[in-house]
Amino acid sequence: MPLKYLLPEDQIPRYWYNIIPDLPSPPAPVLHPATFQPVKPEDLAPLFPMPIIEQEMSAQREVPIPEEVRAALARWRPSPLFRAHALEQKIGTRSRIYYKYEGVSPSGSHKPNTAVAQAFYNAQAGVRRLATETGAGQWGSSLAFAGQLFGLAVTVYMVKVSYEQKPYRRSMMRTWGAEVFASPTDLTNAGRGILAKDARSAGSLGIAISEAVEDAVSHEDTKYSLGSVLNHVCLHQTVVGLEAQAQMRLAGEYPDIVIGCHGGGSNFAGIAFPFARDKMNGQQVRLVAAEPTSCPTLTRGVYTYDFGDTAKMTPLMKMYTLGHDFMPPGIHAGGLRYHGASPLVSQLVASGLAEAVAYPQTACFEAALLFSRAEGILPAPESSHAIQAAIVEARRADAEGRERVILFNLSGHGHFDLGAYDQYLAGQLQDFDYPREAVEASMAGLPKVG
Amino acid sequence: MPLKYLLPEDQIPRYWYNIIPDLPSPPAPVLHPATFQPVKPEDLAPLFPMPIIEQEMSAQREVPIPEEVRAALARWRPSPLFRAHALEQKIGTRSRIYYKYEGVSPSGSHKPNTAVAQAFYNAQAGVRRLATETGAGQWGSSLAFAGQLFGLAVTVYMVKVSYEQKPYRRSMMRTWGAEVFASPTDLTNAGRGILAKDARSAGSLGIAISEAVEDAVSHEDTKYSLGSVLNHVCLHQTVVGLEAQAQMRLAGEYPDIVIGCHGGGSNFAGIAFPFARDKMNGQQVRLVAAEPTSCPTLTRGVYTYDFGDTAKMTPLMKMYTLGHDFMPPGIHAGGLRYHGASPLVSQLVASGLAEAVAYPQTACFEAALLFSRAEGILPAPESSHAIQAAIVEARRADAEGRERVILFNLSGHGHFDLGAYDQYLAGQLQDFDYPREAVEASMAGLPKVG
Repeated sequence: MPLKYLLPEDQIPRYWYNIIPDLPSPPAPVLHPATFQPVKPEDLAPLFPMPIIEQEMSAQREVPIPEEVRAALARWRPSPLFRAHALEQKIGTRSRIYYKYEGVSPSGSHKPNTAVAQAFYNAQAGVRRLATETGAGQWGSSLAFAGQLFGLAVTVYMVKVSYEQKPYRRSMMRTWGAEVFASPTDLTNAGRGILAKDARSAGSLGIAISEAVEDAVSHEDTKYSLGSVLNHVCLHQTVVGLEAQAQMRLAGEYPDIVIGCHGGGSNFAGIAFPFARDKMNGQQVRLVAAEPTSCPTLTRGVYTYDFGDTAKMTPLMKMYTLGHDFMPPGIHAGGLRYHGASPLVSQLVASGLAEAVAYPQTACFEAALLFSRAEGILPAPESSHAIQAAIVEARRADAEGRERVILFNLSGHGHFDLGAYDQYLAGQLQDFDYPREAVEASMAGLPKVG
Repeated sequence: MPLKYLLPEDQIPRYWYNIIPDLPSPPAPVLHPATFQPVKPEDLAPLFPMPIIEQEMSAQREVPIPEEVRAALARWRPSPLFRAHALEQKIGTRSRIYYKYEGVSPSGSHKPNTAVAQAFYNAQAGVRRLATETGAGQWGSSLAFAGQLFGLAVTVYMVKVSYEQKPYRRSMMRTWGAEVFASPTDLTNAGRGILAKDARSAGSLGIAISEAVEDAVSHEDTKYSLGSVLNHVCLHQTVVGLEAQAQMRLAGEYPDIVIGCHGGGSNFAGIAFPFARDKMNGQQVRLVAAEPTSCPTLTRGVYTYDFGDTAKMTPLMKMYTLGHDFMPPGIHAGGLRYHGASPLVSQLVASGLAEAVAYPQTACFEAALLFSRAEGILPAPESSHAIQAAIVEARRADAEGRERVILFNLSGHGHFDLGAYDQYLAGQLQDFDYPREAVEASMAGLPKVG
């Protein structure tokens, strides 16, 4: 029984799967933050080059992947799909567990899948520089690498507390030639405004987004780049699920359950959307998004219009949200700490095509440890939520006397998260209950639309 | 033109290549540290299980790899071989550069290739626990992982200064269930002796070896495990070169030059020995070992009998050595800071079958940065010596108007070495001249044999 299912380089997908035309109803329009009217392509032109804007609104089911992007992806794609024999033995399940592994990419997660596409389209449009924000640095390092490949300068506004606490991701960005600033900076009005109020501000993703957006709109040669949430980002990630489908065919299986962890939504979309197409065509398959109980956007949020950022500068999107003022507790899965969700993923969940589960972080670390000792890969804290969901599903099937085929996406490695493992092993990690009061306070600030 | 050459799982080599029977002359005997007489297998029995001792002295050219070991290797093997198109473009060479990438393993280097084999044979022999030493933690984490796979407890004596400065490797070992002590400890006579003299000793690899050996010989259920230098370790690493030969055939090429970085010798042996077999059969190929100028064992050392450790507890081996008292400067390529060398690699160099070059660390970091920006893989400081050698060879060929096929082994990733990249980028890294005085002083302490 093989452990790995590999595809040759010429089987990198030739198109991205766009779920929009297959959805039961058209997506709710994105609204302008000032007028609450649907945004037009030209409203987005200061931020993104036209091919990206077209992809954001495309009705084309299969969007061809440019050969230059496929060549860039070929550095690490097709990524491997593993049968988790050793994990199955360790938990004594009758189910068969498979995982797609995105940690083989340059920055160690699924993020470069969209970073190289975005860098390509921007370079083609004559853009010289990309501005973006990053929390712990996973997205910033992915875009830094992609910028290198296509000759674009990259400026990263990194949340100050991470800039200081996670120097290694910062180093990785600089190794790949990016300019990295601790946000808030004194380089933008947004940053200066924050610093005037609090010179020692530790920053936040919301502030960093504001700085990056301001940088992009105030420089002719510069555009903005985002690593999750938006439709085109989810589109670019579908290479993950398309490859996984081919690899499951190699294994002679079709999954009963497909699992991805969920923060902004691009990782879950990547593995799940191609299977959602099958499901909409009548295939039996459950699609499960796994999120932290401390930031339970899909399981506890409301499906309504909200801003993508704290500063209310982004367009309004219809999505599951905990309210744009919600500040999640400081769990180690930094990539899952987002108040909102991809509108497309939200629509899948709202329509019952996908389901969501939430787990506390210590259970996820326990699952990660079990997985790592069996499979030899140290997972990112974000990815550990998908492992936990897979183990829960396998045990449930065992209890029911059933045998399931479970597929999950291992979105990245945890080589930069060993401090968190240390804390877990020392018994120092705490769980956070559902932060009901904070969510209710934040919900009160939801915009009144329509 | 493909970027990657992949082999399916069933093409993991079925045997290890043992170079001993093909060498122009038999290896010099290993001598007992007390009597200076050739050691017998039973002398080694307190340290190693019999199958390992047999492999250490085997005259069998092709040693079958047990299926259990192949199944363990299948977690990451066959490792990919890449054509470095982007690097070639960046340096503007006419030569074609290929690299084998061992960073895809659980611990991120070639070390698990031998760790899983050693753990398997020990488990089969009824051993319950393995004791070993580690410097920066690369070897310790590899053995921790291998111990998990085969149900062996693993105790690691980690040089105290690394234990304190490199907490992430320590965490990785604990994540994989190993017991890790900062050496010197008060658990062994060797450790207590050191602490009695200097309670604040920062430790050294020599001391940690002494502690691990003492632990093994003083516990019935425990054996010792070493990650480089010895014949059986080099043997286990030949899967690297055997796979690379198959992958170069896929690429339709045969290398003019094969390069590996060199510390204790197991990485160089892994990539080079199978090509050395071809060379001894008449094939034109240059085999180049790349080491740091600050620890120039092969380029400046003498080929003579010496101890493997500072404390003179190990058998004497005929090898290139800078003297067992030599303490190399604190370069970031910790895995290349060893006073000696594999006796088999030494014999290849002494006989002219392989050659050695030495480079200062800043040139290697510059090469690593160039490589990383082109290829998207962040190399370990050790591996950067092989990159530097490959670039030097490509530029030399260009200057001579020739076109070469260059293959090097990228032995590991640098995810735990970003502090070193930070220092390089900040211009804070220094080079060390050849430490002539320290070497001459150390050479004076070489044992007088025969």
